[in-house]
Amino acid sequence: MKGSLLYEGKAKQVYATDNPDMIIMHYKDDATAFNGVKKAQINHKGELNNAISTLIYDYLKKQGVQTHHIKTLSAREQLCKKVDIIPLEVIVRNVAAGSFSKRLGIEEGTHLKNSVYEICYKDDELGDPLINEDHALALGICDIETLGYIKLQALSINRFLIKLFESCGIELVDFKLEFGNLSNGSLVLADEISPDSCRLWDLETQERLDKDRFRRDLGKVQEAYEEILKRLSEVSTSW
Amino acid sequence: MKGSLLYEGKAKQVYATDNPDMIIMHYKDDATAFNGVKKAQINHKGELNNAISTLIYDYLKKQGVQTHHIKTLSAREQLCKKVDIIPLEVIVRNVAAGSFSKRLGIEEGTHLKNSVYEICYKDDELGDPLINEDHALALGICDIETLGYIKLQALSINRFLIKLFESCGIELVDFKLEFGNLSNGSLVLADEISPDSCRLWDLETQERLDKDRFRRDLGKVQEAYEEILKRLSEVSTSW
Repeated sequence: MKGSLLYEGKAKQVYATDNPDMIIMHYKDDATAFNGVKKAQINHKGELNNAISTLIYDYLKKQGVQTHHIKTLSAREQLCKKVDIIPLEVIVRNVAAGSFSKRLGIEEGTHLKNSVYEICYKDDELGDPLINEDHALALGICDIETLGYIKLQALSINRFLIKLFESCGIELVDFKLEFGNLSNGSLVLADEISPDSCRLWDLETQERLDKDRFRRDLGKVQEAYEEILKRLSEVSTSW
Repeated sequence: MKGSLLYEGKAKQVYATDNPDMIIMHYKDDATAFNGVKKAQINHKGELNNAISTLIYDYLKKQGVQTHHIKTLSAREQLCKKVDIIPLEVIVRNVAAGSFSKRLGIEEGTHLKNSVYEICYKDDELGDPLINEDHALALGICDIETLGYIKLQALSINRFLIKLFESCGIELVDFKLEFGNLSNGSLVLADEISPDSCRLWDLETQERLDKDRFRRDLGKVQEAYEEILKRLSEVSTSW
């Protein structure tokens, strides 16, 4: 039932299925950073992110979040609803880190007074620039109702994920989401949620357990992803 | 009654007066661009911007906009209410141009579907980065009510200025505003509004009549500013 390759991204492949409204998402081991400038393979990353994202999606579905995820098929594959991705990188930040710290001169690790919601225009050539909602409308990315819905969803997902990660001793520093429209027009959460797309710090030691280990050459990347999977698996039994 | 120099900016000096709630703003001929990297003197720019900004402020005051401007004293000097400037560059765009076009891949001259409101964090060292309202709150720049008021004010000033410039054959492409708090806590429009802070194109020929002539070495900078003053003076008699 796995059909032709529809699309290959940096970390995943998307395949057609017999059903025009469903696709198979295949997780690769490829890692990229700085808009594709830095590239490598991380052993087992595809399997780890598939497993981690599955756990997180299961949790979010239990909280009532509408998502593209149908079921996980194998170590590297998920069956998902086909979506028309909205070209926005939706970011929520609880603690200053990375490009945010640098751009605004706020020291990494500073707990923000308020959760910060950001949208970036998903365009590799332009380097995914930060935009605001007026820019999104002027670019014709989506309408104002969609923007409002995405913001509400992202901020409530933030509250759910903070709780989830706190329960396994992890601080949710920031994360990136994507949203897409189903063929019937409804908007759902799409793409993965994993240490590739979140900053996750150990609550006690502040150790980085996410893709910053790769970006910053901190070593033990695979081990960090394994640690996240282990901790999520442990708490998942009590959901 | 002109006291000590309180502050010297790129294009203006601010002097104390006998009254602690008032200052004198002195317009210089200095021009800078690209965050101070490009520098020059433009003959009579100080006088021209003082006269242009005075006309625009007079017009906005007639529309009910609260401002820092009290009265213009001489060719280069204005008496203004002393404000505590909010470190935001408030920008409204009607037509794509400059950095906006480059960042978002929208061709210069494209009329935007909606007026685009932007705020930048006024910080030379950081290069005045674009931010959103969540960033402004996290940075402690001001409170959410102030942000709401500034946005409403900026968008209504946009409507007033579009009309004003249209009446003299000029397209208001974009412009920058600043706001500040008076000692009694009320928020007012501050700083100048001039071809230094607006993009102004001749409606028929699309000729640039603003600081882009300096930024892009198009020549006839002084003549462009003189043309703006001439056209505003002509329509000002009918206000």
